[in-house]
Amino acid sequence: MAKLLQSTPAADGYRMPGEFEAHDGCWMLWPQRPDVWRDNAAPAQHAYCEVATAIARFEPVTVCANRESYTTARAMLPEHIRVVEMASDDAWIRDCGPTFVVNDAGDVRGVDWEFNAWGGELGGLYDSWEQDNLVAQKVLEIERVDRYRAPVVLEGGAIHVDGEGTLITTSACVLNPNRNGKMPREQMETHLRDYLGVSKIIWLEFEAFEETDGHVDGICAFVRPGVLVVDWTDDPESPEYDVCRSVWEQLSGTTDAKGRAFELHKLRAAAPHPITAAEAAGIASVPGSYPRLAGDPIGGTYVNFYIANGGVIVPTYDDPNDEPALQKLADLFPAREVVGVPAREVAMGGGMVHCITQQQPRRRT
Amino acid sequence: MAKLLQSTPAADGYRMPGEFEAHDGCWMLWPQRPDVWRDNAAPAQHAYCEVATAIARFEPVTVCANRESYTTARAMLPEHIRVVEMASDDAWIRDCGPTFVVNDAGDVRGVDWEFNAWGGELGGLYDSWEQDNLVAQKVLEIERVDRYRAPVVLEGGAIHVDGEGTLITTSACVLNPNRNGKMPREQMETHLRDYLGVSKIIWLEFEAFEETDGHVDGICAFVRPGVLVVDWTDDPESPEYDVCRSVWEQLSGTTDAKGRAFELHKLRAAAPHPITAAEAAGIASVPGSYPRLAGDPIGGTYVNFYIANGGVIVPTYDDPNDEPALQKLADLFPAREVVGVPAREVAMGGGMVHCITQQQPRRRT
Repeated sequence: MAKLLQSTPAADGYRMPGEFEAHDGCWMLWPQRPDVWRDNAAPAQHAYCEVATAIARFEPVTVCANRESYTTARAMLPEHIRVVEMASDDAWIRDCGPTFVVNDAGDVRGVDWEFNAWGGELGGLYDSWEQDNLVAQKVLEIERVDRYRAPVVLEGGAIHVDGEGTLITTSACVLNPNRNGKMPREQMETHLRDYLGVSKIIWLEFEAFEETDGHVDGICAFVRPGVLVVDWTDDPESPEYDVCRSVWEQLSGTTDAKGRAFELHKLRAAAPHPITAAEAAGIASVPGSYPRLAGDPIGGTYVNFYIANGGVIVPTYDDPNDEPALQKLADLFPAREVVGVPAREVAMGGGMVHCITQQQPRRRT
Repeated sequence: MAKLLQSTPAADGYRMPGEFEAHDGCWMLWPQRPDVWRDNAAPAQHAYCEVATAIARFEPVTVCANRESYTTARAMLPEHIRVVEMASDDAWIRDCGPTFVVNDAGDVRGVDWEFNAWGGELGGLYDSWEQDNLVAQKVLEIERVDRYRAPVVLEGGAIHVDGEGTLITTSACVLNPNRNGKMPREQMETHLRDYLGVSKIIWLEFEAFEETDGHVDGICAFVRPGVLVVDWTDDPESPEYDVCRSVWEQLSGTTDAKGRAFELHKLRAAAPHPITAAEAAGIASVPGSYPRLAGDPIGGTYVNFYIANGGVIVPTYDDPNDEPALQKLADLFPAREVVGVPAREVAMGGGMVHCITQQQPRRRT
């Protein structure tokens, strides 16, 4: 039913489609870790519910919950959202879930990357990632989708594609020795071409400023082929100040797989609203887990949105920049409804809307 | 997606189809309890694999495994069998799984009965059945099938229907106070009519001789509407000796919902092959769990078969009666392939092929 394939997507004629292409639905995990999510994850669970509910207006949503959280998740989520039992070590299906690929006939397969919690023994964010590493396989089994097991550590948040041959990724993350040791860039490029069906790889170079070691989905996003939004800040104190300028410059100076120059748009980030002492007091301190402390900045980018079939779900931060960001995205996505969802409780755990979602492209066969 | 419905199947025009009607597939659970299955369930897991593999020749099979057994189950089962993570307290999906119902338009819904491990505080076979009681809901969620929650304790092994209005069940089990207290027969009949869409209920009366308190699927089975096989033994020492004669007589003296007299066929059981001392030594003794001891009889009925789309999967016991039973079933099911599967390791846990399977009828909408 769900075969383990020994070839590669590129060899079989499959490619990763753009997120803006049609979906069969969206996958999420359910947060529960008390060392990541304050107050035993209750506020985060409410925030995830809001994201799931917003996406479910546009396409079917499945939320996977650990056994011990199943009845809570089922009770909190609206009943038109599917809830399935699935163990995970945390709640970031963008990173541990499958990357779906499609072929021209409309068939869908899945890529199951190695996952090591963003760095394994060299800076991974928690001690054990055994269950997260099974999430992709379990999702594909449920959907009866055949699977490629890729021989590299990679997170979905580290890659953006336009579905027309272009991949944008970052050296800081994907070539980090804490992912794939000393694997040379050329060898990694071969894997990315093989497993994503891309022909041009754009490596953004910048110094990572957050715990994923520089995920591309925190710095830019495709609106459609040839068009990107780029995270932006005019605050010279922000750790993103230099990064966003450098990324802008790099993207301005390159072309995509089809030879097009990129049309770039700035999305000004929210001001940093650090974790408060009261919030930090609700986060369990556990040896081996990445500490989340009062005063730590919380990411406030708007580029970490999720593109659903008829909508765009955008993280908001109760910040003056919320409204301009939503307005700009509405202009850029005229055929979709742009929906803002409060994301502070998600961002406190280290990611936003894109990080907690994974699209499943539409199967047409 | 999977709605909880407040009405009843009968009110909505749904009925439980006969097992011999077309299926979309079959569900099983994965055995792992060391207090039920000898040698940490390894021999039982092999036996379940054989059953799953036999059924998968005819229709899609999904096996649900607890988190800690997922990778074992996935490794042992052939890859064309779907494996999904799902907690359960043991491995009898006939009894804790959903009862699927269909309507004339070809839509499918599910009935989620209360489950109390065959007797709850009054003789239940293990202490906690919380996970088993969630299995039906979780299966229906995965399949996006709307759900009725029935207000009665009932196991799927306690009911046989012909899909044309007839239900055969047993008083010893379904009216046992350890299931639904003092619920009067008339009230139970109302529930059975409401949730199974039946019009005639045949109550078999006999003294239960095994730990399910007299499941009907251990004593007879429909071949098709109007035609039944009945468990049989000529050994006066057997606990089934009187029961099978009484059941034969009761079925001979009644008619089905369409007014037809039943055509009855005997299936001679295997001789009892008790649990050996060596086998019993491999079963963990756990307080609160039903003890399984050397010398305990192991059920050897052949009526506990599973009817798949083009096949009939029949338990065998390495007994001289295997071959005649398979031959008789081949005669009775001329359009299906009859496949025997060794079932001693399953039977040691208290059931056979029918007890560990649950059909999902074909959706035509």
